[in-house]
Amino acid sequence: MTLQRALVLEKQHELSLRDIDLPLDVGPGQVKIKLHTVGVCGSDVHYYTHGHIGPFVVKAPMVLGHEAAGTVVEVGAAVSHLKVGDRVCMEPGVPDPNSRAARLGMYNIDPAVTFWATPPIHGVLTPFVVHPANYTYKLPDNVSFAEGAMVEPFAVGMQAATKAGITPGDTAVVMGAGPIGTMVALAALAGGCSRVIISDLAQPKLDIAAQYQGIIPVNIKTAKLLDEVNRLTDGWGADVVFECSGSPRAWQGIVDVVRPGGKIVVVGLPVEQVNFDIASLSIKEVTISSVFRYAHQYDRAIALMGSGRVDLKPLISETFSFADSIKAFDRAVEARPTDVKLQIRMDE
Amino acid sequence: MTLQRALVLEKQHELSLRDIDLPLDVGPGQVKIKLHTVGVCGSDVHYYTHGHIGPFVVKAPMVLGHEAAGTVVEVGAAVSHLKVGDRVCMEPGVPDPNSRAARLGMYNIDPAVTFWATPPIHGVLTPFVVHPANYTYKLPDNVSFAEGAMVEPFAVGMQAATKAGITPGDTAVVMGAGPIGTMVALAALAGGCSRVIISDLAQPKLDIAAQYQGIIPVNIKTAKLLDEVNRLTDGWGADVVFECSGSPRAWQGIVDVVRPGGKIVVVGLPVEQVNFDIASLSIKEVTISSVFRYAHQYDRAIALMGSGRVDLKPLISETFSFADSIKAFDRAVEARPTDVKLQIRMDE
Amino acid sequence: MTLQRALVLEKQHELSLRDIDLPLDVGPGQVKIKLHTVGVCGSDVHYYTHGHIGPFVVKAPMVLGHEAAGTVVEVGAAVSHLKVGDRVCMEPGVPDPNSRAARLGMYNIDPAVTFWATPPIHGVLTPFVVHPANYTYKLPDNVSFAEGAMVEPFAVGMQAATKAGITPGDTAVVMGAGPIGTMVALAALAGGCSRVIISDLAQPKLDIAAQYQGIIPVNIKTAKLLDEVNRLTDGWGADVVFECSGSPRAWQGIVDVVRPGGKIVVVGLPVEQVNFDIASLSIKEVTISSVFRYAHQYDRAIALMGSGRVDLKPLISETFSFADSIKAFDRAVEARPTDVKLQIRMDE
Amino acid sequence: MTLQRALVLEKQHELSLRDIDLPLDVGPGQVKIKLHTVGVCGSDVHYYTHGHIGPFVVKAPMVLGHEAAGTVVEVGAAVSHLKVGDRVCMEPGVPDPNSRAARLGMYNIDPAVTFWATPPIHGVLTPFVVHPANYTYKLPDNVSFAEGAMVEPFAVGMQAATKAGITPGDTAVVMGAGPIGTMVALAALAGGCSRVIISDLAQPKLDIAAQYQGIIPVNIKTAKLLDEVNRLTDGWGADVVFECSGSPRAWQGIVDVVRPGGKIVVVGLPVEQVNFDIASLSIKEVTISSVFRYAHQYDRAIALMGSGRVDLKPLISETFSFADSIKAFDRAVEARPTDVKLQIRMDE
Repeated sequence: MTLQRALVLEKQHELSLRDIDLPLDVGPGQVKIKLHTVGVCGSDVHYYTHGHIGPFVVKAPMVLGHEAAGTVVEVGAAVSHLKVGDRVCMEPGVPDPNSRAARLGMYNIDPAVTFWATPPIHGVLTPFVVHPANYTYKLPDNVSFAEGAMVEPFAVGMQAATKAGITPGDTAVVMGAGPIGTMVALAALAGGCSRVIISDLAQPKLDIAAQYQGIIPVNIKTAKLLDEVNRLTDGWGADVVFECSGSPRAWQGIVDVVRPGGKIVVVGLPVEQVNFDIASLSIKEVTISSVFRYAHQYDRAIALMGSGRVDLKPLISETFSFADSIKAFDRAVEARPTDVKLQIRMDE
Repeated sequence: MTLQRALVLEKQHELSLRDIDLPLDVGPGQVKIKLHTVGVCGSDVHYYTHGHIGPFVVKAPMVLGHEAAGTVVEVGAAVSHLKVGDRVCMEPGVPDPNSRAARLGMYNIDPAVTFWATPPIHGVLTPFVVHPANYTYKLPDNVSFAEGAMVEPFAVGMQAATKAGITPGDTAVVMGAGPIGTMVALAALAGGCSRVIISDLAQPKLDIAAQYQGIIPVNIKTAKLLDEVNRLTDGWGADVVFECSGSPRAWQGIVDVVRPGGKIVVVGLPVEQVNFDIASLSIKEVTISSVFRYAHQYDRAIALMGSGRVDLKPLISETFSFADSIKAFDRAVEARPTDVKLQIRMDE
Repeated sequence: MTLQRALVLEKQHELSLRDIDLPLDVGPGQVKIKLHTVGVCGSDVHYYTHGHIGPFVVKAPMVLGHEAAGTVVEVGAAVSHLKVGDRVCMEPGVPDPNSRAARLGMYNIDPAVTFWATPPIHGVLTPFVVHPANYTYKLPDNVSFAEGAMVEPFAVGMQAATKAGITPGDTAVVMGAGPIGTMVALAALAGGCSRVIISDLAQPKLDIAAQYQGIIPVNIKTAKLLDEVNRLTDGWGADVVFECSGSPRAWQGIVDVVRPGGKIVVVGLPVEQVNFDIASLSIKEVTISSVFRYAHQYDRAIALMGSGRVDLKPLISETFSFADSIKAFDRAVEARPTDVKLQIRMDE
Repeated sequence: MTLQRALVLEKQHELSLRDIDLPLDVGPGQVKIKLHTVGVCGSDVHYYTHGHIGPFVVKAPMVLGHEAAGTVVEVGAAVSHLKVGDRVCMEPGVPDPNSRAARLGMYNIDPAVTFWATPPIHGVLTPFVVHPANYTYKLPDNVSFAEGAMVEPFAVGMQAATKAGITPGDTAVVMGAGPIGTMVALAALAGGCSRVIISDLAQPKLDIAAQYQGIIPVNIKTAKLLDEVNRLTDGWGADVVFECSGSPRAWQGIVDVVRPGGKIVVVGLPVEQVNFDIASLSIKEVTISSVFRYAHQYDRAIALMGSGRVDLKPLISETFSFADSIKAFDRAVEARPTDVKLQIRMDE
């Protein structure tokens, strides 16, 4: 264990930037990474403001941060695909490779996954971290550290796009234009959709999404989503609807927006039970899929960013220094509709 | 139009066996069939007792019956795969082949489908019917007319088994051991499952299902379905859960019964909205599929019956003469738990 | 029948621009279209130079041309989704909607399909044509007639991309950078690939393909495709290989280029039997798919072009007047490596 | 290392039953198994007669045998799902769980897999073996050791049936009625096929397969497979063709036997390159899949056997004592057409 400076969530509502003991020994299959950029995620902020997410409760001081990129500074004896100096980003979740889910290729739903900044596991708002090489991914030269730290939230969008089983040229609807909705919209386009109709009540969020070619914003304060979908699809409906708002009301009439034989993908999770007309699925034989984080998406996400098919830079709203980490979190708490992603740049 | 004797639903609660004008001209792509056996379906009974099913209301006298088998007595000029004397069964639903859904191969969800004994379309409890040859299927010599008239309800099970995307050896759960639940269980086994755990409150229904090798009954009056599933799957869960009860309560805790990455198939349709924990799908990445009648299942169902892989004879509870049709319906209204399928045998 | 001016293939090696009797009556489900732009396809050229393609032999004068866009000038009584003045493009193949393949949604492999400019069916290098409304597609305002006439060859690429079952972010290889290879590469990118490695011996063809972001050219005169794929995928291999060259030699070692569990899609058809190491598929569990023309791709292709996700304009090499049709064909016979698509603009 | 009696392949053509040093220490995730029954596999016999299979060459004495069942006699500290006394069967191949293929769920195509009785790894024709608990499967009470030792070859059939993506009620063809062809036929039936048409030149092999309901034998000495398939499918073709003969001649005309949009699964591996008409795939859009051993099939295979859906006992032709192991191999070398599976029963 080594004393390291870190952004520590002491308990609900209390952050401090202080030294804390963290393990930095490098095992044979591991690498040590000097962190460069760490994004502020909604879940980090939620632990700060609420002290818990569902069953995960902050009971002891915990380092925040799990969207991260940096540079390899040491490699374990058994590591062959990485070397010192490689620019990388990291998957924050590490499964048990021998679990039943992991062996089936679904390591994200292995209940034994450990995940950065999910109690009691420390996150990476700290100068160095040691991580399994298998979950550490090299960045192409044309993908910056800031973009590298965006791979994590984009991977959520990629998982949703993958689960949707997009057929090339599909028309998608994304309900909710928050950070995740926007990531899903970009992944859906990159993943084969011809166009994505995105809906929200907040115009600034829609304006940010609508910068991208192929995204069609609908402000549901003033327009009906169903009308727009019918207009754009000649009354046939969307091939895929990604529900990203987490609002129970989104489930009323959602099937009307889907074409016969189409799909709904659940990304936003309603906190409470939802009233839903199960029978409405049947007449159109609609399918509902759901996603939990992501599996096998990092290399795909990085390839899309490296080839220029996906550009996440317009979604980085502001960058803070490590010394200003707490300011970054307080800004995130404000939840400005013009903010998509806030990032923290570690000292060099 | 020709006067024919038929079982006519005059209006709610009123049946009569009388002559009615029915069209019997044979078009080029059609065949004329002398009916031999017609099954009594829950939907026929529901029109009798309630006068409507959802938006379909009986506004004029309507002939009942849509589960039918018989003998070809005349063939249209353009028909090549059938000849006079062929023993056949018929799909009661006929789509518009030029509709968008039909062209995509999903003719069952074409809104323009006409369907026997669904108002205002007459059914086939009458000596003769004219039908498109494309929706008329030859029976193998070793499949009786009575079994031929079972193909229709079994096709519902086949559609559910097909939508489930069964992997060979899967373990399934069927919730609800009524006629449809039992058909789904048999189709799931024939479709690749190693075993089907079927649950119900009525022991006689479970006893009938449990005659079949591979079906494991669970009486949820005295046992917990989740416990049984966990016991039989070492706590992993079922690969597929077919919800066939239509009960809103079935949706409470349903995801607990499914394995990580598993599927739910909606067969039973709750009449009202259901309270459902959408978020519970996510942590296991569970998928929900739904079925509406069936498409492309008749030849597959008949092949399974012809090869001996599926035996539906034990599900035929009693056979009535055409003259006793009304008695057959009154018996069906009783809903005896020991009755699976009642059939009517037309005069010869 | 009405006399119309048309580009007529009299027999092998003999074209004339002359009047010919063509049917122009509009049935209830049909529309009449004034043609605007017609592309020159390799198959048109092959009939010109060889007089046949496989079993299809030109035995009587036949109008050429099947890649077409124009304007609706008359609509049949039963047509609701099109009106006079609509700018449209047309699918050249029309199936029997009651065939078994068509009912299953695979109308392209219905043996009864009739296809423009495939003997004995006339093509559309003529001012007007009557066509089923169901196979006539409205163009968005921002898609020109010239682009509309490109939908047909692009649909071949879309079919290949669809059959490949692309997972978002996949890396593809396209072998052969001719017109079809280039269309496949663009469809693969639009359909979810992060990058497409395209190989050919002709540098001008590679240069045209490499204009597009995400396409990586490999000249196999000077480099080894396998080396490039290994370099770009860390030795893992491509997720999908589209074989578009039609060369038997492409099949030697093709599996080496595919990743474990990856796919090969056959687009180019070798004229003779190929020597192939079937056993080599096994150790990686590689799958081979094949495509025949396309089904259900026109609206998807048009949506991708309308949203700006796909731009085919750079592939239109030169446009000829209808009067110069024969010149256009003679130019196509030259097979200049810098020519991708030649088009003919009908008189206005 | 402990001296144990074992059936040792000293070199090509030379077997001995003698003591050899084998490792028997039990690691934390491992179990020690007392072997009860071991099947004789074609690959064991091939090493005996040829000294190599492809790149795998017997360079040092190697214990044979990899189809095995036995009883757990010791469990490692980290093992929870097995206990001493459990009757089990074992997967002979053990992958590196951290390999890329294994993490994707395709552990069978991990190049680092070690596999019993594949040089230089010892097999299990010896009283005890230590094995990872994760690849050791409990047998139900109603599945005998002899059947447990059949799970390995049946898993090959299960992998083929799984890759075929069977739709319930499919009609399959199996080319080649040897042990693997028969296993594939049974797995195809259990996996959802209504019937399997199996072809061979050897009548005794066909007679054994034809004992099973749903299997239709075709002796291609006297009948044409294509004629039989056309007769049974009204000229439409088989949904799936499993090529299990490994004969290059099987590839001539194979596509004729497949329905439009159907599949071929490669199970038998031709030793040399095959002449194949790649273009013939296209007109029917046929897909070719291939299998390599199996992954995730043991528990599914055991569930099918335990529920009575699959009965492999009729395929056990004769059982030898461990002392007679060499006789068992010499009998296997005879390749009698009436022998499906020979087994060796270890001493008790």
